[in-house]
Amino acid sequence: MKYQKTLDHVINELEKISNYNYASSIIYWDLETEAPKEGIEKASQVLGFYSGESYRILTDLEFNKNIDLLLENIDLLDPINKKIIIETKKDIENIKKIPLNEYKEYNELLSKAQSIWAEAREKNNFSLFLPYLKKIITYKQKYVNYKGYNEHPYDALLDDYEPGITVKQLDIFFDNLKNRLVPLILKINKKKNFISNDILKLDYPIEKQKEFSIFIAKYLGFDFKRGLLRESTHPFSMSLNKYDVRMTTRYFLNDLQSSLFGTIHESGHSIYEQNIGEDICKTRLGGGNSMGIHESQSRLYENLIARSMEFWIPIYPKLQETFPENLKDIPLDLFYKAINKSQSDLIRVEADELTYSLHIILRYEIEKELIEGKIIPEDLPKIWNERMEKYLGTVPDSDSNGVLQDVHWAAGLFGYFPSYALGSANASQIMNSMKNKLNVDDILKEGKLEKIKEYLKENIHKFGKLKDPNEIMEIATKEIPNSKYYVDYLIEKYSKLYEI
Amino acid sequence: MKYQKTLDHVINELEKISNYNYASSIIYWDLETEAPKEGIEKASQVLGFYSGESYRILTDLEFNKNIDLLLENIDLLDPINKKIIIETKKDIENIKKIPLNEYKEYNELLSKAQSIWAEAREKNNFSLFLPYLKKIITYKQKYVNYKGYNEHPYDALLDDYEPGITVKQLDIFFDNLKNRLVPLILKINKKKNFISNDILKLDYPIEKQKEFSIFIAKYLGFDFKRGLLRESTHPFSMSLNKYDVRMTTRYFLNDLQSSLFGTIHESGHSIYEQNIGEDICKTRLGGGNSMGIHESQSRLYENLIARSMEFWIPIYPKLQETFPENLKDIPLDLFYKAINKSQSDLIRVEADELTYSLHIILRYEIEKELIEGKIIPEDLPKIWNERMEKYLGTVPDSDSNGVLQDVHWAAGLFGYFPSYALGSANASQIMNSMKNKLNVDDILKEGKLEKIKEYLKENIHKFGKLKDPNEIMEIATKEIPNSKYYVDYLIEKYSKLYEI
Repeated sequence: MKYQKTLDHVINELEKISNYNYASSIIYWDLETEAPKEGIEKASQVLGFYSGESYRILTDLEFNKNIDLLLENIDLLDPINKKIIIETKKDIENIKKIPLNEYKEYNELLSKAQSIWAEAREKNNFSLFLPYLKKIITYKQKYVNYKGYNEHPYDALLDDYEPGITVKQLDIFFDNLKNRLVPLILKINKKKNFISNDILKLDYPIEKQKEFSIFIAKYLGFDFKRGLLRESTHPFSMSLNKYDVRMTTRYFLNDLQSSLFGTIHESGHSIYEQNIGEDICKTRLGGGNSMGIHESQSRLYENLIARSMEFWIPIYPKLQETFPENLKDIPLDLFYKAINKSQSDLIRVEADELTYSLHIILRYEIEKELIEGKIIPEDLPKIWNERMEKYLGTVPDSDSNGVLQDVHWAAGLFGYFPSYALGSANASQIMNSMKNKLNVDDILKEGKLEKIKEYLKENIHKFGKLKDPNEIMEIATKEIPNSKYYVDYLIEKYSKLYEI
Repeated sequence: MKYQKTLDHVINELEKISNYNYASSIIYWDLETEAPKEGIEKASQVLGFYSGESYRILTDLEFNKNIDLLLENIDLLDPINKKIIIETKKDIENIKKIPLNEYKEYNELLSKAQSIWAEAREKNNFSLFLPYLKKIITYKQKYVNYKGYNEHPYDALLDDYEPGITVKQLDIFFDNLKNRLVPLILKINKKKNFISNDILKLDYPIEKQKEFSIFIAKYLGFDFKRGLLRESTHPFSMSLNKYDVRMTTRYFLNDLQSSLFGTIHESGHSIYEQNIGEDICKTRLGGGNSMGIHESQSRLYENLIARSMEFWIPIYPKLQETFPENLKDIPLDLFYKAINKSQSDLIRVEADELTYSLHIILRYEIEKELIEGKIIPEDLPKIWNERMEKYLGTVPDSDSNGVLQDVHWAAGLFGYFPSYALGSANASQIMNSMKNKLNVDDILKEGKLEKIKEYLKENIHKFGKLKDPNEIMEIATKEIPNSKYYVDYLIEKYSKLYEI
């Protein structure tokens, strides 16, 4: 090819960024799983150094010239290199729009804001966090203008997590959810103790939980020769490459669900990463797609699979054997109900399948209105509590359990929450389509999970970042993403469970 | 200062190398402690990348010009920066002498040689390893000529590990050891079962060993807020900086000594690293000194302290409580004898305090003669076995337990072995000096280990790499390194133990 040398140079520079990312990921993994407390400061400095090095490459003049040259001749490239160049250009554009000094100031602000947020939450004192939140919102409003948008300023933020998605689409999406789910939730609130999950809150010895976590990850198809399962405060997944995919979970003595569904959720993310196609796994396309796609895989495993009755038929006896004191005399249908109890809780991360997206709607609406200046940060505690009552029929007992509960705003992650709901909706849409091809219920009853893994690999996982989220959904479901299957699924499942 | 800008540039570049080293260390730690098997290949590539980046900086023209400019004006610098520039220049000189392509070829050779060596050892087949060993020796002979030396070619290799030490000095050092220790060892061989360590080979539950390892590391003064203790195939210590010092040990059900003295040995290294002075800890001088100094600290803790009777007086009851099935009825003096049993074993890493240095002498002599061409690699198995008989009175049953037992030659580490013996000698010399200032026996009996840690910090640890090894020995002992105290100590201890 005429531009082979140019391409080689670009690929070589991207390989450097990939090596910086590798180092940063390992340092991050280490910080989250075991690094000694006093070593954190130096580790953070080193992380800062590597992010600076990547910035330097992406803004380097020669590199930019080469990218532009390749873009002008994009049709000479094969599909993989084509996509690599287009995605790199996007990153360059994004990073260039923000002046370096503002970018640095903002990152310093965030690192302070997060520790202040933690203190404010601990002390239940929103006013401590307020000045930082205001600065972050001001930065985000500036960022939105640097980046540009067509219709709504919040679109510019959404685009960082779900390329192409807009307020216009999301308003329809969430209205459908709100209109159909809120009435059901309020009805369920009235049947408060219709289902009990007390059996999941007995003493479950941690060592036994660890054992079962490993079993279930393997059962789902996570390959331990190419991965690890460890413990951390907040569960997460991390892929160095398809040959080294790591995840964590957390263990509480009196909460079987936390480690169990935490492990299953992260297995969904990690199986995805382990299934990336060989042809792209060594390139910058060799990781999972947007959050809306990534969460669709974790939630598909966590909810649609592992909160179904069929899933437990072959392995519930194994769970009973592991915890005979608690479960020996509990029949499967009671266990099934317990893991599906719906309850209008205050805390998003502990919410059940049904109420979860209402927590997201609340945040989506607030973020949107903050960015356009319709509401001001000072009013947040009040607004938060009013909407909690409206959507979930419950009012926070404190700001710590209300407006201060999530780290996202302190971390500057405006525009991120909607992806959680999109992930759930995508999961239902994908499951619906998979059920047209496979007899999923039988597969689950027979414990042949590898068939599901294989299906997901062929229809979603193997593409990595080679396709856009919408393209992937079209390949996998022949439809663009929508909320129909999600709402239908929830209403059917929970009406039946609560006999409504 | 007139050259402040030049100095700033150099320090900035060295900071980059430090960040590359930080990443490499964490990746190495991860590989040794938990990385999944299939991820190793990519990790090795990334390690190669970072070592290349450091090479690039050290051979960069502008960087070299700046270093030379600072060297010409060295007296304008404060002592710390002075030493930093001098040490950096040494690294540059070393790295520059070898043509880049040879250096790369050699590194590839080593990575192959190590896996072939492992195979050869497993199959007890020296001839498999022989062609690789020959190439490595040829490279080393070339390297010696690139580097230059005054008297003996082996001096050039020794200098990489113990700057300034020569064959001339070592011959005297080892002759003293050989002449005085070999007769004692041969006498002890005749009293083979005079002391038994069978009690240390009962079932010691791993979880309990882990518990006691943590206890003993803390007891010695290892600070867990600034460090970790984990498990790996071969125990090692690793310092990211004084705020994050990590070590490993290994656990065998039927060998209490392995985890116990492994942990104590590594604690010696790690306490050293945690005690580096605040003024240098963020510079390239902020790590422990040469191997002869570093091993003096690990061996001082492992042997002179933890293999003494006094050390166990306050904590032997705790050990008995941890393993009551095995030790409840074993009095301290029997335990003391067991941990000090001397035995002419085949394997260096399992050797006791007395016979250890004979294993080193054997390797030292062979390496010296290989490099000067007095012996050829083909004859190694024969020569090895003859000298084992001469020095230790025992003949290997196989090459796997003989000439193939150590990885060092496959890893290109010629000149490294003598430091192990120097470390032991330094330890005795330091202990002798410490006993003139502190009542060490009383301190041990009272369990006040922090006093010893404090003494070592003030006299050795805090200097990091700011002083040369000989300077440190002079500060700590008012003498240059010598083998007198070491041999005296061994002869006194083992004559008494074996009633000879």
